Amino acid sequence: MDAVLAKPNSVADFVDFQTAPSRYRHWKLSIENRVATLAMDVQEEAGIRPGYKLKLNSYDLGVDIELHDALQRVRFERPEVAAIVLTSAKPRVFCSGANIYMLGLSSHAWKVNFCKFTNETRNGMEDSSVHSGLKFIAACNGSTAGGGYELALACDEIALIDDRSSAVSLPEVPMLGVLPGTGGLTRLTDKRRVRRDLADVFCTTPEGVQGQRAKDWGLVDAVVKPQEFDAYVKSRALALAASSDRPSDARGVELTPLKRTIDVYGYHYRYVDVALDPQRRTATLTIRAPESAGPDSIEEILTAGAEWWPLQMSRELDDAILSLRINQLDLGLWVFKTEGDWKNILAVDAVLVARGDHWLVREVIGMMRRTFARIDVTSRSLYALVGPGTCFAGSLLELALAADRVYMLDDPQCALALSDMNLGGLEMASGLTRLNARFHCDPARMDEVRDHIGNALGPRQAAQLGLVTFTPDELDWNDEIRLAIESRLAFSPDAMTGLEANLRFGEHESMESRIFGRLSAWQNWVFVRPNAVGPAGALKVYGSGNRARFDWERV
Amino acid sequence: MDAVLAKPNSVADFVDFQTAPSRYRHWKLSIENRVATLAMDVQEEAGIRPGYKLKLNSYDLGVDIELHDALQRVRFERPEVAAIVLTSAKPRVFCSGANIYMLGLSSHAWKVNFCKFTNETRNGMEDSSVHSGLKFIAACNGSTAGGGYELALACDEIALIDDRSSAVSLPEVPMLGVLPGTGGLTRLTDKRRVRRDLADVFCTTPEGVQGQRAKDWGLVDAVVKPQEFDAYVKSRALALAASSDRPSDARGVELTPLKRTIDVYGYHYRYVDVALDPQRRTATLTIRAPESAGPDSIEEILTAGAEWWPLQMSRELDDAILSLRINQLDLGLWVFKTEGDWKNILAVDAVLVARGDHWLVREVIGMMRRTFARIDVTSRSLYALVGPGTCFAGSLLELALAADRVYMLDDPQCALALSDMNLGGLEMASGLTRLNARFHCDPARMDEVRDHIGNALGPRQAAQLGLVTFTPDELDWNDEIRLAIESRLAFSPDAMTGLEANLRFGEHESMESRIFGRLSAWQNWVFVRPNAVGPAGALKVYGSGNRARFDWERV
Repeated sequence: MDAVLAKPNSVADFVDFQTAPSRYRHWKLSIENRVATLAMDVQEEAGIRPGYKLKLNSYDLGVDIELHDALQRVRFERPEVAAIVLTSAKPRVFCSGANIYMLGLSSHAWKVNFCKFTNETRNGMEDSSVHSGLKFIAACNGSTAGGGYELALACDEIALIDDRSSAVSLPEVPMLGVLPGTGGLTRLTDKRRVRRDLADVFCTTPEGVQGQRAKDWGLVDAVVKPQEFDAYVKSRALALAASSDRPSDARGVELTPLKRTIDVYGYHYRYVDVALDPQRRTATLTIRAPESAGPDSIEEILTAGAEWWPLQMSRELDDAILSLRINQLDLGLWVFKTEGDWKNILAVDAVLVARGDHWLVREVIGMMRRTFARIDVTSRSLYALVGPGTCFAGSLLELALAADRVYMLDDPQCALALSDMNLGGLEMASGLTRLNARFHCDPARMDEVRDHIGNALGPRQAAQLGLVTFTPDELDWNDEIRLAIESRLAFSPDAMTGLEANLRFGEHESMESRIFGRLSAWQNWVFVRPNAVGPAGALKVYGSGNRARFDWERV
Repeated sequence: MDAVLAKPNSVADFVDFQTAPSRYRHWKLSIENRVATLAMDVQEEAGIRPGYKLKLNSYDLGVDIELHDALQRVRFERPEVAAIVLTSAKPRVFCSGANIYMLGLSSHAWKVNFCKFTNETRNGMEDSSVHSGLKFIAACNGSTAGGGYELALACDEIALIDDRSSAVSLPEVPMLGVLPGTGGLTRLTDKRRVRRDLADVFCTTPEGVQGQRAKDWGLVDAVVKPQEFDAYVKSRALALAASSDRPSDARGVELTPLKRTIDVYGYHYRYVDVALDPQRRTATLTIRAPESAGPDSIEEILTAGAEWWPLQMSRELDDAILSLRINQLDLGLWVFKTEGDWKNILAVDAVLVARGDHWLVREVIGMMRRTFARIDVTSRSLYALVGPGTCFAGSLLELALAADRVYMLDDPQCALALSDMNLGGLEMASGLTRLNARFHCDPARMDEVRDHIGNALGPRQAAQLGLVTFTPDELDWNDEIRLAIESRLAFSPDAMTGLEANLRFGEHESMESRIFGRLSAWQNWVFVRPNAVGPAGALKVYGSGNRARFDWERV
């Protein structure tokens, strides 16, 4: 499928986020009526990188890529599934978290990318629980440690086996000198509402908490004797499924393999093209509108299936974003462009809005939402360029609204357009629409914008509405864009990451935005401190028999 | 005043947060009727540390200590002042921000402590604006850069002189490779509601923005011609003062010098004692209750003045916290104890509540609030020990509620008590009371707690209400406390900082908590990255004529 690879990565190093159930090595997916069971059964020898063994159901990025794929399959291919049981196929261990040797061997960028993708997958589970009636139960049938417990925290319910040895634990702080950084700390307080002093004790007790105390502290929802465990989990899964509005009798849509070519110039898909420019350190992402308005009825949409534009486009864009993030670390600026007829996008958006109560349309909107939400938390500078022939309209206008800056050529041929999809359905991780985030929820500005839905907005109008940053004329355009790109890429990449992470998320927060903001920022800090990653840092010496040596200064 | 100093600092290195107007070197305070003017006039040669010159009204910790002191003087000693004009006594420059050479020379811990104190002083201005009717106007009569603009952002209004050269700017990202990290990014979005793409342009334009554009973008409230500037500022200050409920005819309370002894054993004040244990790496803070219920009428309170217990205790505690933070970096655990009769504290609290509409009582509550709020953002582990003779009651119960864990001896002689001060007035930076933060705003838990106000709560009851973490009995007490202290101090100090910063602030956020959380965490990360502080990092090479060299990887 994939051909030659652009620098600086070799083909062998290319991290591919595409997979399929036939290729899974770490998960077993089984479905019985309305309940799917995803059993973790990690193959020790099958790490995505060499140098470590995935013992005791510990995971790395490869394990998470399969989990993400499996969730997508259930969402689209098995609409009758209304509850997913996450459990382990191994004895006595549910999951022991992110592989520590992998973390010790990894570069800072790898650790951060890995954590980000893991977070997004878990947030995606909660997104499906809230929006799509797909409920999750963690059946912790053995030791549930670190990232394993963080995975359980992302579920709607947690059942822990009461076998006098299996505990839930977050041993990162005491054992590794890092944080439970894939949502653990945030979900303990925000979601589970564990009292902060008990959370403190829990997070500093490497052996964790089991039995009734785990339930009393709010760490799990139930502790269940081994002989009753399977029946309990099944009954809870059925109860959760019964509360779901996923259809019990629908036919699914197969997620056919993406057609993708990768060459020295970039990544090429049907509706998405990524041009890599390693010299300039930019990636240009061009997203194409559909060739026509496309299907209107549910029957036609089901027939189009994975080829329906909003689904195919967002699957392609999702893959492009994930591939760029981890494979092209040096490309510090992504330039968004669009191509095609904006009226076709508004036509698709109208169908998305009108048919949004159908399970498939709802899933497609969810897929778009989660894909676009990746952009907001991507640590790259983002520009959107609006010129003649571009179609930043409706759903695709979100790309411009996600950008740090929008440049629009002051030419009557150029237009933007709003649709109802800009008013809801494609929210950022903070839970706000990008328009609301942009205008700080100012009702007057929002009313003004709402009055223009469906119209072609020229440069003056777009500027006056506050939708674009600058509108240079043709004389200035080339110089201004060149300068804007060059100056951006001369700045410290770290300062850019911090700047963008603060400005993209303003005053509104959610559990998700706090995971990407407060928690991840602290974890990133810990991840570069000698106390964690120096020669005698806790993460480095783990398992060596040596004790970590710390600089005792508190900062 | 101060004697020998405990290790590891020498007397010469001891950073003292106490000062008085007669000793100011950097600020000129003048008062005319209801308007005070604080004019910045930084003495180049008077840095708090050697090695740099404070040119162009740039500041360091010493400048900020004076600002903090001056604000305290106005709050307490000059109650008739209702508006403060912050301006510059130097020509053409308002303030050029934190001194860059100082930052380049400073350790990570110094930078972080410096930023934290600066943030607290600015948050304190906003706290006074909201709660005490003390309004602030930044009269930017010259170039307003970096931390200078961040100081202006903390004011209620910003006036910029329109002299065709003075701009407001945040040049940290483009020039230094660090963030506008003392609230700048957060206040741009949360407080000034600047559109995020314009904020992006502003923060990446080293020369900043001036004139009408600064007003259009929301960066300032007014741009005013030089010949009209003073009159405009005066009229706005008078208008702000007119809206204030500070009394125009009240007599102030002098903030007499704190009586403090510092020796090898610790810091000793009348109501606060800090015992340093460098071997064990702990500091034990003992806070004493008043000897009696104290004054009841406003007249008696005014007579007691700075010796009124809640004011004196919190001034002493404030000084102890600030001194420990920066002078005792290795003491990773603070143990809070209390001594005295809890009934006297509840009596004081009753006066605070009953007389809270009097300006002085309001200021005292504000002082307590700001002092206690420092604890929540202190990067030290915090334990509270409740034993016989302790008096964690009402206001002082906040110390236990601020702690990461509370240990209470299971002995009928031990008691806690709640007062109305635990229900409001002493909020954390997030805007929540510590009880609400503890119970995740659960109304049932809050009702339950409210029913027990004023009662002595024994160990069983305190545990059942969720106010304490553990209640060991006398047999276990010594071992359990010793183990809890020893194990805590064996953990990575950085992981502790990240853990505590996440757990102490749960799901509720405010602009202030985002400054200490999201913004500071990202800034701390940037502050240890080679792109900022490596040999060729932007902060290190500034002014050397050399260009910074960056690792272009985006993380």
